[in-house]
Amino acid sequence: MNTDNESNNLVKVAVVQFEPKLGEVSLNQDKIVELVGKAFDQGARLVVAPEMANTGYIFESKEDAAQYAESVPGGPMVQALEKAAAGKNGYVVSGLMESDGDKLYNTAVLVGPEGYIGKYRKTHLWDVDKTFYEPGDLGFPVFDLPFARIGMCICYDQTFPEVSRIYAMQDVDIICSPTSWVVIPGLAIPEDPTWSYIARTQAQVNGLYMLCADRIGTERGVTFGGSSCIVGLMGFLGGPASGDKEEILATELDIAAGRVKMLSAVNHLLNDRRTDLYDEKLGYKG
Amino acid sequence: MNTDNESNNLVKVAVVQFEPKLGEVSLNQDKIVELVGKAFDQGARLVVAPEMANTGYIFESKEDAAQYAESVPGGPMVQALEKAAAGKNGYVVSGLMESDGDKLYNTAVLVGPEGYIGKYRKTHLWDVDKTFYEPGDLGFPVFDLPFARIGMCICYDQTFPEVSRIYAMQDVDIICSPTSWVVIPGLAIPEDPTWSYIARTQAQVNGLYMLCADRIGTERGVTFGGSSCIVGLMGFLGGPASGDKEEILATELDIAAGRVKMLSAVNHLLNDRRTDLYDEKLGYKG
Repeated sequence: MNTDNESNNLVKVAVVQFEPKLGEVSLNQDKIVELVGKAFDQGARLVVAPEMANTGYIFESKEDAAQYAESVPGGPMVQALEKAAAGKNGYVVSGLMESDGDKLYNTAVLVGPEGYIGKYRKTHLWDVDKTFYEPGDLGFPVFDLPFARIGMCICYDQTFPEVSRIYAMQDVDIICSPTSWVVIPGLAIPEDPTWSYIARTQAQVNGLYMLCADRIGTERGVTFGGSSCIVGLMGFLGGPASGDKEEILATELDIAAGRVKMLSAVNHLLNDRRTDLYDEKLGYKG
Repeated sequence: MNTDNESNNLVKVAVVQFEPKLGEVSLNQDKIVELVGKAFDQGARLVVAPEMANTGYIFESKEDAAQYAESVPGGPMVQALEKAAAGKNGYVVSGLMESDGDKLYNTAVLVGPEGYIGKYRKTHLWDVDKTFYEPGDLGFPVFDLPFARIGMCICYDQTFPEVSRIYAMQDVDIICSPTSWVVIPGLAIPEDPTWSYIARTQAQVNGLYMLCADRIGTERGVTFGGSSCIVGLMGFLGGPASGDKEEILATELDIAAGRVKMLSAVNHLLNDRRTDLYDEKLGYKG
């Protein structure tokens, strides 16, 4: 009997939702390691943690933010993730704050049993991001894990359909998205989690999976709405999670099924694109 | 006192949802004229009717379909719409089947008080469309009405984020979308109207309005799920409608507000695009 999930293409994945405490990097790091460890123990091969999971999000100034930034790789957060993944059979993606010389980036890192693998720098900067961080300059890199090809984006990036489309055109199976989804009264509230539905649409129109790990809690008057989710062509596969509770969402993904991308017997989500009318890769300059 | 809606940028719009009877073009035409007339009487300046509203959708063959096709303009359906709009202060967009020589198209027409204005031919063909119709060859044309700049798409077109993005980049305020949203168990059902949410996302990420007029009923085993909707940056402004009832949805749109496209004090949905990483207009060849 074959009990290896990789062989039958079912891969367990998870997202962890919690409340990072602003500026308490050591405490947050311990919490991330704890939750990611729990997800690994549940059999998850790929776990996603929120945006800026180790630092919190609403800083007062670039100087205020900068004291929590670290070099990537080599800094304490990446080291903690390396330790969490060592000897495990899984990979973790987490948001953190990166420093590179005097520049700061809103970054997501990918770490596995072999250690640090790569990073993505948020390309579309939301609100306060614009005050503190440089626009991401690494494009949309893809990484081949043993069980799936993945890409990363961060929060507001998902609002730009170009991002998921560009990843789809690079044959990405799973987009890992650390987020800090803000509550906007009348637009994005936990009772109607707009951000989760936007992610769902991006997954559905591209026929790929998206793992959105959101945070909860309030910082300096800004509330984050949880509603983490795991989405694919068929809609919500996990979540949306609660708006205010610490949670681990886990589900099995069929990677091979995801590659089929058929919405009807004759409708292929990518092959049906009218590339005679618009560019194959939206003019991606990566 | 200014009572002219155009001057304050509030424009009433409507979508009409009903069940076209397969092949009964005269009956359907009368129904469309009746519903569009009611919407005009309610003050709507722009009314959208479903895809193939005058013919129905599930034909047995191209020959079966062709008997219901008409030249555009000049055919009976466009003439009926011209009559409906004559002397009124409004415009109507409706789906119909177009013949051009021996070619058939799944087409949407725009008709106003001045008569026939223009057409759009469905560019992304869904399922049976591929058997009967040619892929649309008119690109994504835009039309300036007295109160707004509009574009058209048809049903499955909305699944391609390129379409709404290309319209947004042409400064379109409202996308009019006649649809025949099929029910797909587990994916698109009236209780969770996936197609409506996909439309909502396309409206939200582009900061434009989208008027989706769906049909109801079952033809040759294919069920259509209603759930017509009027969507914008702030989400559902009308609907989703029921899954199985004839309905007129009407609401006022603030066209000037739609042009602001700000999601936060510093986040502009179009200006935030990273056109250094991907093409300004997704390589639109229109």
